[in-house]
Amino acid sequence: MRVAVFGGGSWGTALAAHARRVGHDVRLWVRESEVVDEIRSRGENTLFLPGVRLPDGLTATTDLGEAASGAEVAVVAIPSAYRRTADRQIHALLPERTPLVSATKGIELGSLQRMTEVAAQAAPGRRVAVLSGPSFALEVGLRQPTAVVVAASAIELASSLQRALASREFRIYTSDDVLGVELSGALKNVIAIAAGILDGLGYGRNTEAALITRGLAEISRLVVAAGGRAETAAGLAGLGDLVLTCTGALSRNRRIGRALGAGQTLAQAEAALDTAVEGGPHLAAGAKMVAEGVPTTLAACELAERAGVEMPIALQMRAVLYEGKPPREALNELMLRSLKRE
Amino acid sequence: MRVAVFGGGSWGTALAAHARRVGHDVRLWVRESEVVDEIRSRGENTLFLPGVRLPDGLTATTDLGEAASGAEVAVVAIPSAYRRTADRQIHALLPERTPLVSATKGIELGSLQRMTEVAAQAAPGRRVAVLSGPSFALEVGLRQPTAVVVAASAIELASSLQRALASREFRIYTSDDVLGVELSGALKNVIAIAAGILDGLGYGRNTEAALITRGLAEISRLVVAAGGRAETAAGLAGLGDLVLTCTGALSRNRRIGRALGAGQTLAQAEAALDTAVEGGPHLAAGAKMVAEGVPTTLAACELAERAGVEMPIALQMRAVLYEGKPPREALNELMLRSLKRE
Repeated sequence: MRVAVFGGGSWGTALAAHARRVGHDVRLWVRESEVVDEIRSRGENTLFLPGVRLPDGLTATTDLGEAASGAEVAVVAIPSAYRRTADRQIHALLPERTPLVSATKGIELGSLQRMTEVAAQAAPGRRVAVLSGPSFALEVGLRQPTAVVVAASAIELASSLQRALASREFRIYTSDDVLGVELSGALKNVIAIAAGILDGLGYGRNTEAALITRGLAEISRLVVAAGGRAETAAGLAGLGDLVLTCTGALSRNRRIGRALGAGQTLAQAEAALDTAVEGGPHLAAGAKMVAEGVPTTLAACELAERAGVEMPIALQMRAVLYEGKPPREALNELMLRSLKRE
Repeated sequence: MRVAVFGGGSWGTALAAHARRVGHDVRLWVRESEVVDEIRSRGENTLFLPGVRLPDGLTATTDLGEAASGAEVAVVAIPSAYRRTADRQIHALLPERTPLVSATKGIELGSLQRMTEVAAQAAPGRRVAVLSGPSFALEVGLRQPTAVVVAASAIELASSLQRALASREFRIYTSDDVLGVELSGALKNVIAIAAGILDGLGYGRNTEAALITRGLAEISRLVVAAGGRAETAAGLAGLGDLVLTCTGALSRNRRIGRALGAGQTLAQAEAALDTAVEGGPHLAAGAKMVAEGVPTTLAACELAERAGVEMPIALQMRAVLYEGKPPREALNELMLRSLKRE
């Protein structure tokens, strides 16, 4: 099967490597020509996925048309801010029946749309699905056992993607709760920033566990209010990814939070991300590691207000990220909310 | 208020220190006279809670009657295997109206009773409550912000305990789902052993996050089948404590699992616990760190069979702990369960 993966960041590269290992004919579209050159010449993407030897036969290209041509599945792993434009271009180039699988965890600012909603507008008539779950790209690249969810409103699409892409190391569960999977995957990044702040401020694991618990509760409230299922929030795309992102050192959003907790500004924290891949070089000008949780915090607060749902952690994170509130003050307010029944 | 704490292990000592800091007159009953001597002479319990300076005015004693005398609240933090006998003795010595708060996370083998069920039989007519949640004793000892749940079937009892024991650093939420809180707190130790095995075998964080997600699902199934609430399993006593225990290096159950994953026998792994407290000396003969997850695994499997609930992780852990199944084989079987809808 021919698989196109759009986005040569860490996640797109890891998914392309996985699809190639499963035996597909994989074409990876990458924006940066120096990354394409390196993948072609050395079978590595040291900028975004250092330490992973990419499988032979993985084609990298900067040409969208070359990647899209003849693809039977299209996976899109491009930051949320660029998805609408990218999805439009990709849609125009893909065969008509090819499904688009969103692998981006974010919410579009302004429209407040989830990525499959963006795709539905940018690629009208095309079948769309979402792939999400607890999956550090580096570990997928290193073939560590990983379990994810693929959700589509037509469960047959999710099942066919499962058959096409699952392997012994890369378990795929199916779901028809697209909204629940997407909102859970986006919102956990907001909580991860808070977890990083706790760490940066010197708090311990007890505090972190309480935050994660409260975080899942507020994710679940918004998912349910928006029409998704609580079980989805309690599954791989919600709880699983929340735990991974809040406790794992590889999480970009957590690293942003930790830097804020340690006294850096948001600009400093974001700039430091570019050099924070273990063993990775500085990113070239223009290339950028994206912490989706930062814009998602704004979107989450707006969605919560619209739905009439309480999201105290997201509100405090918005105050820290966008209104200059000292992180310690924000965390103290969260911890000191009035005692109540669980 | 006079508070008696029974059990001078790490958790009992930390709870006693906390209650004393809140301003209560606290008497801590400890089995080992050398621990009492050290608390009296140096204000430390280096055997079980090294690194924590205990507050002045905390009374330690090996005399149950001295601890129980005049107590208005009794907290019991004694391993599950000794609770029935201990609760009987404590009941006979306590004032009639004094509530007994169980702080033990386990299930009694044989009877398969939760600790408040044991207490109800051993201390007939006495009001009982349970305190549980994500709380490494060392961090409570060091005043790291911590949030726990106190549950009692009469919510007024939970509320009065909340008023008596909550502080800025030690948040207490109340619940009337005693069964849900107790089962969640006991069962998470089983999943923590599996998490430790994963680590010992060299698996990564993606795998661990998937295990935690599946673990919460099976805890929740048993809680609901037994009459508790799914929200309790998704709260501090379930999810919160599960995350803490599965990802934190301080967890005894996780350490047992890691040793098993690295090829040790159960006996070796349990023996190693005694020296595994960071900075701690060898335990004296007779003293013992207890990993409740080991017997709880047996109890969980029996409860699951009785309730007709699937608990695949618990079943595999029973096979590893009690039937000599190689850990890698058990984990592979868990990871390779047939692909299905989430």
